[in-house]
Amino acid sequence: MIKITLPDGSNREYAEGITPIEIAKSISEGLARKVLAASVNGEVCDVTRPINNDATFKLLTWDDNEGKSTFWHSSAHLMAEAVQATFPHAKFWVGPALDKGFYYDIDLGDDKMTEDELIVLEKKMNEYAKQNNPFIRKSIPKAEATQYFTEKGDEYKLDLLSNLTDGEISFYTQGSFTDLCRGPHIPSTGFIKAIKLTSVAGAYWKGNEKNKQLTRIYGVTFPNQKDLDEYILMLEEAKKRDHRKLGKELGIFTMDDMVGQGLPLWLPNGGIIIEELEKLAKETESDGGYKRVVTPHIAKEEMYLTSGHLPYYADSMFPPMELDGTKYYLRAMNCPHHHKIFDAEPKSYKDLPFRIAEYGTCYRYEQSGELFGLMRVRCLHMNDAHIYCSKEQFGQEFRAVNEMYLKYFKIFGVDKYVMRLSLHDPAKLGQKYINEPELWHQTESMVRQVLIDSNIPFIEVQDEAAFYGPKIDVQIWSAIGREFTLATNQVDFNSGNKFKLSYTTQHNSSDVPLIIHRAPLGTHERFIGFLLEHFAGKFPTWLAPLQVKILPISDKFMDYANIVLAKLKKLHIRAEIDDRNEKIGKKIRDTELMKVPYMLVIGEKEMNEGKIAIRRQGKGDLGAKELDVFISELCAEISERKLD
Amino acid sequence: MIKITLPDGSNREYAEGITPIEIAKSISEGLARKVLAASVNGEVCDVTRPINNDATFKLLTWDDNEGKSTFWHSSAHLMAEAVQATFPHAKFWVGPALDKGFYYDIDLGDDKMTEDELIVLEKKMNEYAKQNNPFIRKSIPKAEATQYFTEKGDEYKLDLLSNLTDGEISFYTQGSFTDLCRGPHIPSTGFIKAIKLTSVAGAYWKGNEKNKQLTRIYGVTFPNQKDLDEYILMLEEAKKRDHRKLGKELGIFTMDDMVGQGLPLWLPNGGIIIEELEKLAKETESDGGYKRVVTPHIAKEEMYLTSGHLPYYADSMFPPMELDGTKYYLRAMNCPHHHKIFDAEPKSYKDLPFRIAEYGTCYRYEQSGELFGLMRVRCLHMNDAHIYCSKEQFGQEFRAVNEMYLKYFKIFGVDKYVMRLSLHDPAKLGQKYINEPELWHQTESMVRQVLIDSNIPFIEVQDEAAFYGPKIDVQIWSAIGREFTLATNQVDFNSGNKFKLSYTTQHNSSDVPLIIHRAPLGTHERFIGFLLEHFAGKFPTWLAPLQVKILPISDKFMDYANIVLAKLKKLHIRAEIDDRNEKIGKKIRDTELMKVPYMLVIGEKEMNEGKIAIRRQGKGDLGAKELDVFISELCAEISERKLD
Repeated sequence: MIKITLPDGSNREYAEGITPIEIAKSISEGLARKVLAASVNGEVCDVTRPINNDATFKLLTWDDNEGKSTFWHSSAHLMAEAVQATFPHAKFWVGPALDKGFYYDIDLGDDKMTEDELIVLEKKMNEYAKQNNPFIRKSIPKAEATQYFTEKGDEYKLDLLSNLTDGEISFYTQGSFTDLCRGPHIPSTGFIKAIKLTSVAGAYWKGNEKNKQLTRIYGVTFPNQKDLDEYILMLEEAKKRDHRKLGKELGIFTMDDMVGQGLPLWLPNGGIIIEELEKLAKETESDGGYKRVVTPHIAKEEMYLTSGHLPYYADSMFPPMELDGTKYYLRAMNCPHHHKIFDAEPKSYKDLPFRIAEYGTCYRYEQSGELFGLMRVRCLHMNDAHIYCSKEQFGQEFRAVNEMYLKYFKIFGVDKYVMRLSLHDPAKLGQKYINEPELWHQTESMVRQVLIDSNIPFIEVQDEAAFYGPKIDVQIWSAIGREFTLATNQVDFNSGNKFKLSYTTQHNSSDVPLIIHRAPLGTHERFIGFLLEHFAGKFPTWLAPLQVKILPISDKFMDYANIVLAKLKKLHIRAEIDDRNEKIGKKIRDTELMKVPYMLVIGEKEMNEGKIAIRRQGKGDLGAKELDVFISELCAEISERKLD
Repeated sequence: MIKITLPDGSNREYAEGITPIEIAKSISEGLARKVLAASVNGEVCDVTRPINNDATFKLLTWDDNEGKSTFWHSSAHLMAEAVQATFPHAKFWVGPALDKGFYYDIDLGDDKMTEDELIVLEKKMNEYAKQNNPFIRKSIPKAEATQYFTEKGDEYKLDLLSNLTDGEISFYTQGSFTDLCRGPHIPSTGFIKAIKLTSVAGAYWKGNEKNKQLTRIYGVTFPNQKDLDEYILMLEEAKKRDHRKLGKELGIFTMDDMVGQGLPLWLPNGGIIIEELEKLAKETESDGGYKRVVTPHIAKEEMYLTSGHLPYYADSMFPPMELDGTKYYLRAMNCPHHHKIFDAEPKSYKDLPFRIAEYGTCYRYEQSGELFGLMRVRCLHMNDAHIYCSKEQFGQEFRAVNEMYLKYFKIFGVDKYVMRLSLHDPAKLGQKYINEPELWHQTESMVRQVLIDSNIPFIEVQDEAAFYGPKIDVQIWSAIGREFTLATNQVDFNSGNKFKLSYTTQHNSSDVPLIIHRAPLGTHERFIGFLLEHFAGKFPTWLAPLQVKILPISDKFMDYANIVLAKLKKLHIRAEIDDRNEKIGKKIRDTELMKVPYMLVIGEKEMNEGKIAIRRQGKGDLGAKELDVFISELCAEISERKLD
């Protein structure tokens, strides 16, 4: 008998050789019907793979990332089966799962694949899916596999084989398609109920432009039609909300060839959003006891040799500038400059926690092919801060950082978020991880406890911490359900030593501070890109570049319009008059396009009664109101940073 | 007879060969006694030099910069006479006038000069001054001069001679000292009534460290003792107010070797001052109709080739970074980025004036020997903005910029300032100056008129404009009378063309905007350096890093102190409690050192009566006051940015 430990910690006994699907059935027939794969001792495998030893065990369904991933990889095989039926001479390179969906890179020889033909392929895939063919695994000696692909004349699989060792090679077959594959796969093609091939593109073999260009087909599949319909709707909505499109339409940012790729210039409307975000950050950080500093964007090579960013991180940095015989680097991170601020004046325990904040601008080299709108850039304005504290203060400080996140999520209406807690591996202390077992234990437990106490959803990942401490990646979802990586928080035991930072303790001895790196609003670039999609450009009033547009019905009402404008401006409300000689309908339509929260229509009646007729973006006509009442409500909406 | 045109435009007739001193006497004997030199057709000359043709003419006294400069250059000769008497083998290199005073670089051979010996020299100079020896000019053929210095074995003067042409060589003699000198000089040594040799230092010949080190003696002289006494007092005060000293004591900024020379890091207290200055600028600029933008600190080489900064300005820029085969430069100015913002969206006359502002950070290469505290740095946070306007709008826009200066001068208590208006030379149109005679005429007249209308003191300088338009340098004086260059305003007809900027006029044609470059608060670096000296670190309350220190007499009053603190903090007043277990006298002394505007002393009586005992920095005890009354007065002082 072997002992199977379930995720809830309970144990069950089974005969040696039991398979995951049999375990599932022993728990619930209903569950068994949903199982896509299993995790045995942390390794994902087929549900039919026998288990011969005691193991920790988890059944994986569509609700698990590994379940989805297996589902999509199997879908890539299903697509390959359809491609093979259509193009018998096709040769297959690799077909991995993606965050959302899958692709397969295929050599079609002289054949071409068009977007139209994707529909034909989809149809064939649906047919094979309905056949509910099982995915059958077969271990193959290397020699036999090599012989098979040599006879087939498949140089791609032979290339893959050349990197594999005898004993670890397997073939998977479903229906008429066999592939060299490590697996795992879902039980059978019938699980795949809804299929969409989304696009076709060229992709150089192994990503090298000197190699042959293969055909890459992207697709996404679901266990039911409803999920696919929702996904397609989301894609369409995402297209409408594309931050590059909205960024241009709303005058938020621009790119310029002479300035360079990945270097956004923020136009006046973007400048307002940046200003409002920084105001929010400054207020929040001031309340949190942070002090603000300002540091240069460059430093000598020595600084980054000390921090350890050089030479390891050099590829992600801009090349150095040589001055007076010394190399200067454009900074890719703000921390070393902040460490120098900590170090500028002697510190005692009374100065701790020492929290310093700066919207610091960094420059990182990204391959030009990787650059994408505001999401992948070379210039980053980071909501950065560093907290230098004692070990005793760490828990409280980390809790406060988390509370700041929650505050921001509420302000921006981010309902779905998750924190990914990356932990160390005790077996790798002194190698991959700094050898401070007690500190690792303490900080990891404190971080975990804070996350639990704050009711923050989180997942733990072993062996993915930074060298110098546990880290947390914060993932958020936009209003249309797209996932964004917002920020990374890091606990740092190491930089304090590297930069010889110290403080005098209560006992008059010297100690090295712990450092928390945090950036809850991420970078302006990524965060404003996210907000553009999240709000579809319809920013809440406090963030909107133009908050109020005054629309006089005719020139007759310009005097009153100017009185309204003056009142609003005095209260620093961003307002403008549309004084064009246009029909009111056109004025409203044009203002709607610019997504201005409030339109104040002014005619004879409004002027005589000291009122304004209000139209709210997205809500239409709200009727007339006394001007002063409207203004006081508006001021409250703005100062409370209301979402609506 | 020749015609002499005086500064007021009036003409006088004199016999050919008349000398300036004779002209002076013909006007007033009293004036003649004060004349140090004269300006004939713009060239400064001795008062005994005959005038043979019609000329514009000005008598120069101590009140003129050229008068002072002549006075100090003659003082250098006087000092050389004293040095020669003390060190007969001394050889003299050059002895120029400075902004304030003069120096002479001297080869003393094996002799050494110490600070103590300066007093002996001073004494000797006073003796020679009392002799009232005239400065006598003698034109000398080059051969004769060469022979003279060859016989003397003076390789320094021979080196100077080698660069001079026959016919332009003159000797000046006063008392027993003769020097190769272009002049001019004051009439006689008796004008020099007060002498101070301030320091002695080493200086490499021709500034090249491979050459011999000469002895440089600095001094300053005045036409009366009172001026010297005031100057010495000012120097002592300037020493106390040294921005580097105060910057360290008050935790404003630091420098760090690993970051690099000339790259200040702003500590939390400096961060607060920066924040307040930027708030002031943003408010002022927002009221002035400016919009804010944010642009990257780098751009491609092409941008600076287009702007014309490359290759001419390359030596003042950081070296390029090569990326993807393209050179990127750290920017030395913000204008090209702003031009790109103007150009990002089509503009019509309705969009003009288009005013965009940014506290833009620039990087300039200065020789490491030139770097000095915050005054000469390599990283500059500039209060920058660019105004794009039509020719018709220019006058009004330029007036508004000037009003902004005046507003700032008032806020910061700058009582003495002058604008230096640099004009073009019509003879050099198309060469040194862009060939737009009408635009030059228009803008120069408008600029001049605005200065006159605004009652701004200004001087005009011919042939010193920028290539692309007239410019104004703004000079201000600190509270102790030291002069600072604050900022440069430029009118720019040229960049619009270079960057192909245009807007659609009312007549549906296309025109190129005029551009005004302006930065009334200069750079944070220089301006905060100025403010440190100007206020002696005693910032007005709105700017002070810490505004209020609460000093409880003992622990018993901590609860009340905390109530006071909470009330202040709620109103965003920067306040702290001194909760140390120290005597109140020590608490007051320590707070005075940090130059905190307000100290609130709290004891039994204050607590029971809901009051606080107020001490004002520099004014001492102001007595007790109701807490709420004090707070409301304080809020007014801060929001109105009062000086006192």
